[in-house]
Amino acid sequence: MNKKEREGMLKNERHFGDDLASAVERVRNPVVVGLDPRWEQLPAGLTDASPADFSQRADAYRQFCQEVIDVVAPLVPAVKPQAAFFEECGPAGMVALAHVIAYAQKHGLLVIFDGKRNDIGSTAEAYARGILGREGQSGWEADAVTVSPYLGADSLEPFATVAGDRGAGLFVLVNTSNPGSHMLQDLQVDGRPLYRRVADYVEGQSADTRGKRGYGIVGAVVGATYPQQLAELRTAMPQTWFLVPGFGSQGGTAKDVAAAFDQRGLGAVVNNSRGIIFAHRKPAYRERFGDARWQEAVEAATREMIAQLRAETPAGNLTGS
Amino acid sequence: MNKKEREGMLKNERHFGDDLASAVERVRNPVVVGLDPRWEQLPAGLTDASPADFSQRADAYRQFCQEVIDVVAPLVPAVKPQAAFFEECGPAGMVALAHVIAYAQKHGLLVIFDGKRNDIGSTAEAYARGILGREGQSGWEADAVTVSPYLGADSLEPFATVAGDRGAGLFVLVNTSNPGSHMLQDLQVDGRPLYRRVADYVEGQSADTRGKRGYGIVGAVVGATYPQQLAELRTAMPQTWFLVPGFGSQGGTAKDVAAAFDQRGLGAVVNNSRGIIFAHRKPAYRERFGDARWQEAVEAATREMIAQLRAETPAGNLTGS
Repeated sequence: MNKKEREGMLKNERHFGDDLASAVERVRNPVVVGLDPRWEQLPAGLTDASPADFSQRADAYRQFCQEVIDVVAPLVPAVKPQAAFFEECGPAGMVALAHVIAYAQKHGLLVIFDGKRNDIGSTAEAYARGILGREGQSGWEADAVTVSPYLGADSLEPFATVAGDRGAGLFVLVNTSNPGSHMLQDLQVDGRPLYRRVADYVEGQSADTRGKRGYGIVGAVVGATYPQQLAELRTAMPQTWFLVPGFGSQGGTAKDVAAAFDQRGLGAVVNNSRGIIFAHRKPAYRERFGDARWQEAVEAATREMIAQLRAETPAGNLTGS
Repeated sequence: MNKKEREGMLKNERHFGDDLASAVERVRNPVVVGLDPRWEQLPAGLTDASPADFSQRADAYRQFCQEVIDVVAPLVPAVKPQAAFFEECGPAGMVALAHVIAYAQKHGLLVIFDGKRNDIGSTAEAYARGILGREGQSGWEADAVTVSPYLGADSLEPFATVAGDRGAGLFVLVNTSNPGSHMLQDLQVDGRPLYRRVADYVEGQSADTRGKRGYGIVGAVVGATYPQQLAELRTAMPQTWFLVPGFGSQGGTAKDVAAAFDQRGLGAVVNNSRGIIFAHRKPAYRERFGDARWQEAVEAATREMIAQLRAETPAGNLTGS
């Protein structure tokens, strides 16, 4: 980002790093609810349509996600729709995704479009323009997008430039929570794992776009399943927001993610998808609520996660804004 | 891919590695026309609509791409629509993309969906199911998709499994043609560049899915701008199809890509986007055809690239099927 672009960004009323801090403080917790509508796990009653009819299926996804949003909007700062499940329904799914994003924002939530997009130069700009920005600026109008770094710096800068221009943000994959992440991310380069190279780059971009609350608009995806690495990265990336997946279903606990936060309880948001939206399938909740009252299972699971993070991480220090 | 999955794949009538070989032999050249509709470069006459109206813009992209397909379908084996430019138009763009893909296939072309998607496990499967497969199997029905490898093996296998099941293929980013590719891809790991690790993995997957013509369904994206690396990778990946970007506008020449082919002239397809679809803007063609006869510029540029590859690469050895 050059000087002129940075000035343009700072003139913008919105700054994703600051907006995320405000959203987290408003509800006094860092929970992101992942919207991963998987057909075979939807509550009974939503799956009367034929899964082979993309348009009916997309409509069921829209309805399901909107009902999840109704429950979680007063409780959490943000949702993260997973583009893959909407894309699985073809164009009809992408229409549904746009509706879900608009609905979430109307209810006061920030929206992270989990698309793990990547391309170079003006093609990366086209993705960013398509996905990011409010008020008629884009087709999906998300507040942030996830991005993959394999193509290098000239694939990340265009996303940051467009995001800055629109008051939006991005999260770059740095150290992910899946077992296969070892294949490339943990390879040793000059005595350090590869992901530290990506981390250095992202921190530089964050520093360059730092807002009033101390964090930039270029965040990092850092998995919950490697607490030691999370702690190292928090130290190495003091100006970078972390998006932490892997909580709950993937094995990460509140204790595991404690090191992701700064002392104010800012600096990280923690995603939970299946553990919240499909809570009605967990034995404990199934007994209490069943499929019929699945929305109450969503609420109970969200409140439980919030309580765990407040009890065991610096998120307990958050003061309401 | 386990034994059962491999048997399922081989029972399938379609095998992407074989289908690509047949398509290349049918037209006796390896040219892929990249469909990157950029608003500001469209020929006059297609840009009467308002670019801010996503649905009008998407419709102009559809019309432009269909006219390109009308010209190139008898000449080349495949087209590669760039998803970013369609996504830039929001859901309407994704509808247009589905029309363009169907139109290309109806005219006998293979279609590579350039989406550089990536995610893990069942989420990666959802992307693959959404993008790949014919006859009502998916929303876009492409024959292959480009995929990014940063997340590791558990992000690539699900794509290969779904692709195999549907007679489709994928191309994994290995060594790309952009300047920023050095940031990660060229880092030294145990004395070799990182991209060689990805190359080894991809070759293993290709070997595992090898068809009758000697190539698997998991290809590699290898840039035209580093001829020496292209030659090394050809030797290291004898069963892997290469998708070679960077020809023309990005500086790669026919001589540069010669090492990408096997002696039959198979093993690589070479993409050209701007150099073909926006040929009417190049001085030489602008003079001859102008905006009004842009389709003739597309044809002339395609024929010129075919002639260059036949003259200077093993593609000259291709025998018609």
